[in-house]
Amino acid sequence: MTKKLPDMEGPVCPLPRPHQDRIVLGHGSGGKMMADLIKGTFYPPLANPVLLSGNDAGVVQIPDNVRLAISTDAHVVSPLVYPGGDIGRLSVCGTVNDLAMVGAKPAYLTASFILEEGLELSLLKSIVESMKAAAEEAGVEIISGDTKVVAHGDADGLYISTTGVGWLDPDLQIGGDQARPGDQVIISGSIGDHGIAILEARGELGFKTNLKSDTAPLNQLVSAMLAVSKNIHVLRDPTRGGVATTLNEIAQQSNLGIILDESSLPIKPAVAAACEMLGFDPLYIANEGKLVALVDPDDTQKVLEAMRQTRYGSDAAVIGQVEKEPRGRLLMKTGFGSSRIVDVLAGEILPRIC
Amino acid sequence: MTKKLPDMEGPVCPLPRPHQDRIVLGHGSGGKMMADLIKGTFYPPLANPVLLSGNDAGVVQIPDNVRLAISTDAHVVSPLVYPGGDIGRLSVCGTVNDLAMVGAKPAYLTASFILEEGLELSLLKSIVESMKAAAEEAGVEIISGDTKVVAHGDADGLYISTTGVGWLDPDLQIGGDQARPGDQVIISGSIGDHGIAILEARGELGFKTNLKSDTAPLNQLVSAMLAVSKNIHVLRDPTRGGVATTLNEIAQQSNLGIILDESSLPIKPAVAAACEMLGFDPLYIANEGKLVALVDPDDTQKVLEAMRQTRYGSDAAVIGQVEKEPRGRLLMKTGFGSSRIVDVLAGEILPRIC
Repeated sequence: MTKKLPDMEGPVCPLPRPHQDRIVLGHGSGGKMMADLIKGTFYPPLANPVLLSGNDAGVVQIPDNVRLAISTDAHVVSPLVYPGGDIGRLSVCGTVNDLAMVGAKPAYLTASFILEEGLELSLLKSIVESMKAAAEEAGVEIISGDTKVVAHGDADGLYISTTGVGWLDPDLQIGGDQARPGDQVIISGSIGDHGIAILEARGELGFKTNLKSDTAPLNQLVSAMLAVSKNIHVLRDPTRGGVATTLNEIAQQSNLGIILDESSLPIKPAVAAACEMLGFDPLYIANEGKLVALVDPDDTQKVLEAMRQTRYGSDAAVIGQVEKEPRGRLLMKTGFGSSRIVDVLAGEILPRIC
Repeated sequence: MTKKLPDMEGPVCPLPRPHQDRIVLGHGSGGKMMADLIKGTFYPPLANPVLLSGNDAGVVQIPDNVRLAISTDAHVVSPLVYPGGDIGRLSVCGTVNDLAMVGAKPAYLTASFILEEGLELSLLKSIVESMKAAAEEAGVEIISGDTKVVAHGDADGLYISTTGVGWLDPDLQIGGDQARPGDQVIISGSIGDHGIAILEARGELGFKTNLKSDTAPLNQLVSAMLAVSKNIHVLRDPTRGGVATTLNEIAQQSNLGIILDESSLPIKPAVAAACEMLGFDPLYIANEGKLVALVDPDDTQKVLEAMRQTRYGSDAAVIGQVEKEPRGRLLMKTGFGSSRIVDVLAGEILPRIC
């Protein structure tokens, strides 16, 4: 008597289809597999006539009477997806924000991808969708790109480098060396949210918060500010190294002192608790949707009011001011009436934060 | 009697100084170590006023009456240094060439670096020097950059993404869809040199050649061509996927047929021998300092003559022509009088070639 065959009812199991749901080296070949990846994964969400032209460079018109601003960033954040964002949203916002911080209107982005063999295609697709959403929110288009694939173990999922170009009013002079004594230091909202959210997403926090990263495009916030004041001297987004490192850079570039008022720093309870526990100073924790602005004292109130009308500036606050001394340094006035020098970050506290 | 101390003459051995000659995670912190890396390694060779401004974006003037061309590439070549170039020279030339291939005059580059913990600083410095030399040769400036560091094992030495912007004459229409029946197909020199040189540098060739990669900036060659003809319809640099894949793309974009003459393809003996032995077709091997041009037959001779006067076009040759049929395909006429369809590269033959 032959052995009874196993029950053949139930769902049909398809044959395994290797290479159909993951990145393989062939996706970086320059040939048919790469063309299919680009047409299947990158073009559908990002499509625009310049990108679809398929030439080696994108070509666009330039408005009259502008200067060109250009900025680039590599993005290596880990994990790739975190509460409040992912590497796709981050890569668009990071570059949009760098352009906005010189006062430029971001217009076009390029994106180059380094993909690790084995990366899930569905994850890549969701990250590209996220780039599209962030680009739409910021009002920019991605018009040129590149894809490379490296062997398993030669990257960590994927890295994205974005470069942005924007148009800059010829009269605008915003930069770290433009600070003046008396300028008020404004922050657009609470500090440290991104860094602590990433830490929690990595499972390194030890307790649960409802914190989300602040990853956001700030160009519309900057437009609202520039619409009410011609006396915004410095704009900077305090990413790696946090507010402390950013303000130190400005103090050095302008050779002036910046005096912070500790009690005015907007810090969420979850960020304060996490920093307390881990021995971090929130002034050094990265932000990805905040800016500091150094503004003439006469214009500070109207700039603040304009910021508070916008989505990403609703918690804007004055946190300090510029003085002649201590030249090139950042000084913190504490709640106890004392003051201390706040230096730049020396080494590394949170690798791969952006 | 006490034991004789060892001879204390000779060179003084300094204490080991960890982290001084290699990249560590702190170099990506956004803080002091990163600032020192940038000031010590990137600024000295690359210095220009825009880069040194130290703001989030570089700002430059735009010439009158031009369009903007923009292109980006990630570079992951392995090994980092090879006969005829390195990842630094490659990253500058790759982006300069992509701009030149739409007829634009390359002006400014940005560079973002992903560094692996443990990378030797001396190697990084030599690669940045090489970028400077290539940028000088091409007449472009690197005006904005970014540096990220990932842990040992999350990259392979370093990756460089470069983005370039260039200025484009408003009348120029060069692109893959501009090919016309009768156009002559010109190649600027011998094919396959880069791919085979990389293979040899990896120790995968099995015999020794004196071959060097052709890594070179082609913008001055393109300028020389455009100076003598307004009837250059297509320019493309046959990198990944080689001449076969590039010409297939053009055939598809223009919906015309391209007929190659096998006997006219310039191939160095070492490349021919390596391909013969490894079973590769040189038409699919990457080039990094060659271009194909599709030119009106009336202008072909003067374009060829202009090319042959330049450093990177001295071996320029006509290798085929455009016809109406077979639409969207590349056809090769062999030495035996037969002809065969040459398809795009399907998968991968040489990963991390650029």
